[in-house]
Amino acid sequence: MSYRQDIAGCLADNCKAGVTAAELDDALRRAAPALPKLATMQRNGSLPLLRLPARRDDIAQIKSLAAEFGKFKDVIVLGTGGSSLGGQTLVALAPPGRTRIHFMDNVDPHSFTLLFDALDPAKTGLIAISKSGGTAETLVQFFACMDWLSRRSAARTIVITEPKSNPLRDLAIARKLRTLDHDPNIGGRYSVLSIVGLLPAMIAGIDVAALRRGAGAVLDATLSAKDPRDAAPAVGAAVSVALNQRHGVVSTVVMPYVDRLAHFGLWFRQLWAESLGKDGKGTTPIRAVGTVDQHSQLQLYLDGPADKMFSLVMLAQAGKGPRMPAKLADPNLAYLAGKRMGDLIDAEQRATAQTLIRNGRPTRIFTLERLDAQSIGALLMHYMLETMIAAELWGVNAFDQPAVEQGKVLARQYLGEKGRVKAQ
Amino acid sequence: MSYRQDIAGCLADNCKAGVTAAELDDALRRAAPALPKLATMQRNGSLPLLRLPARRDDIAQIKSLAAEFGKFKDVIVLGTGGSSLGGQTLVALAPPGRTRIHFMDNVDPHSFTLLFDALDPAKTGLIAISKSGGTAETLVQFFACMDWLSRRSAARTIVITEPKSNPLRDLAIARKLRTLDHDPNIGGRYSVLSIVGLLPAMIAGIDVAALRRGAGAVLDATLSAKDPRDAAPAVGAAVSVALNQRHGVVSTVVMPYVDRLAHFGLWFRQLWAESLGKDGKGTTPIRAVGTVDQHSQLQLYLDGPADKMFSLVMLAQAGKGPRMPAKLADPNLAYLAGKRMGDLIDAEQRATAQTLIRNGRPTRIFTLERLDAQSIGALLMHYMLETMIAAELWGVNAFDQPAVEQGKVLARQYLGEKGRVKAQ
Repeated sequence: MSYRQDIAGCLADNCKAGVTAAELDDALRRAAPALPKLATMQRNGSLPLLRLPARRDDIAQIKSLAAEFGKFKDVIVLGTGGSSLGGQTLVALAPPGRTRIHFMDNVDPHSFTLLFDALDPAKTGLIAISKSGGTAETLVQFFACMDWLSRRSAARTIVITEPKSNPLRDLAIARKLRTLDHDPNIGGRYSVLSIVGLLPAMIAGIDVAALRRGAGAVLDATLSAKDPRDAAPAVGAAVSVALNQRHGVVSTVVMPYVDRLAHFGLWFRQLWAESLGKDGKGTTPIRAVGTVDQHSQLQLYLDGPADKMFSLVMLAQAGKGPRMPAKLADPNLAYLAGKRMGDLIDAEQRATAQTLIRNGRPTRIFTLERLDAQSIGALLMHYMLETMIAAELWGVNAFDQPAVEQGKVLARQYLGEKGRVKAQ
Repeated sequence: MSYRQDIAGCLADNCKAGVTAAELDDALRRAAPALPKLATMQRNGSLPLLRLPARRDDIAQIKSLAAEFGKFKDVIVLGTGGSSLGGQTLVALAPPGRTRIHFMDNVDPHSFTLLFDALDPAKTGLIAISKSGGTAETLVQFFACMDWLSRRSAARTIVITEPKSNPLRDLAIARKLRTLDHDPNIGGRYSVLSIVGLLPAMIAGIDVAALRRGAGAVLDATLSAKDPRDAAPAVGAAVSVALNQRHGVVSTVVMPYVDRLAHFGLWFRQLWAESLGKDGKGTTPIRAVGTVDQHSQLQLYLDGPADKMFSLVMLAQAGKGPRMPAKLADPNLAYLAGKRMGDLIDAEQRATAQTLIRNGRPTRIFTLERLDAQSIGALLMHYMLETMIAAELWGVNAFDQPAVEQGKVLARQYLGEKGRVKAQ
């Protein structure tokens, strides 16, 4: 497996506020039925996201489009939430020097002014993604970019949306743009291994076959586990939910010690919040980055309310990066002499994990030997499975987001009015 | 005033889980002594951050250095936490086309490889900031950049640190680098209006006089208020603490509807967490961005645990940005016809605020008529004062961060060992 999960720091034996063996047993027993249920849904095709890791039939088309768009200097990806965060997560791992991908996930006029001023429409491709095809933000972005690309738009735009007629698809057809199907049965926040994540990733130079391989290994190991204790996502879900239900944990902090995983933290944040935050249940996901947030959030984490679970994502970095001088005159700096930058981040991540645990803050550790397409695929699949299993434990539907409709209706209503916000 | 605070959506009259009039009265009564106390500390100079808005004597030096560094194509700013987040907040508001500022606040070897590959040392300036001069991350960054700049370093490096001897200052002196004093009595998270924030901001083209003017107006209005009810930061602190103490609010979400304020959210997050997260007290700050997080967090915010307070930062954007076609054939798109991008974000921010309040989620609204140096100065000062007043209400010291020392000691210990993390 290309990652390792260690939950020792979440157990009462090692951490004052951790779960007891009995609590963990109970949660695992309740989580157990989720595994055969997921296996059935994979087999009968009712949850197509579980078939994505094994798919190969869609690669040729994505590859050809990626080769075409890889010739552009810049590619703009329109879309928000699940249409954007998976792609952002993958592209953050891309090698430098390729086509630059700009994920525009907001409707801030200033950001579009800066974008249009900085790019050359003659050297830019456009990908617009909206599952429903009715997302107001994406439609407004789309119109703005169509104007900017002008007559060039038909040749260099791809629209990804559901196959059935919808506003975005109808606009694309009227303008003779290429359209690709978003699987109607894969929700945005579970779409990273579909064309939604794969097309931007492949343009940026990510090995999408390795990505799916990494995800597939975690999926297979989980669904074939005889005991939920052997399925890392089930163990993660059991610990997460038990800490909430028995120990007052209300927030869950994911803190990678790798800059390239900062976007992964945002992807996780949507997955966890939208899938589980319903009926008054769920925990609040928080994205942190190590070591940066040691200098921002660690005081709170260690000495504020004991209401958080921590998941540190560590990468083996020792021995990497710039080397410090072998001799340092200042005795206060002796600990740095001859060390490398990677030695410091390595020591910091281990020290922070230990400090959290010693202070009674339940802490799980993910360890990656390498950060590549395969290991990010594994991590993404781990969290999708953990989220679905946690939904079983909380008794909520992991696939809907019923509460957000009210605000959309109200926004349309306000758009019809003349009012605007006023400061005095 | 260049911003307006509206707490109506945090009151029980308008929001089910809001504070009652009696609870607010009580909290304001308890907050009241903080105002004359702060006024005294301003007068006798014991809290020098309160004198920064009125300072002009330091501008000439910063201006001259900014002019010099403004000639570089790129400037790297080393430092983490309070040495970085204030500058990041200000530079995010800078006009495009100036010197690019790269805030390096981590020790990820890969990020430094990318940085050094992308920049030309002959066209790059360096600013290293550490108040104590002993921050391991900043020292390691410093050594790496010294090597990279090589013989050029002396001419193009500025070190900002406390006046007393410390590792970074001693290194700077040995290498004949220019050093500037970090006021020893202004903590990093309160340093944005000092040279720490102002130097990067001025290089990037921010009007720092307007910044201080905006901050000064809020400070003066607050310290001269006869009644804490007339001091916006006192009202904000009273509501925030009362929601925590009386209504089970454990998290506080700051959600600007402006991309350029995304870094402000990170600055706030440190200020609030490090100042208040101690002795088991405080609330957990969460940075969100609208409308982006409507498609990621809003489901949780509306229908998950009712344990959050929201502060939406709205900018008057109606009438701005690209315009949609005047006629749209699809009746489902009629609501967008002829509208501008700014109309949509304007409607979204108001609709989300109303939806949160209707769902019983206490919501405060900040409104900015413009986003400029003056209004960001006002917002920064508002939050510094609100944080200090909240500390009085919770009975904690807003200026220390005692819990983080343990991890630092452990990291040094680990650095001395040969161990490293291993995945299996």
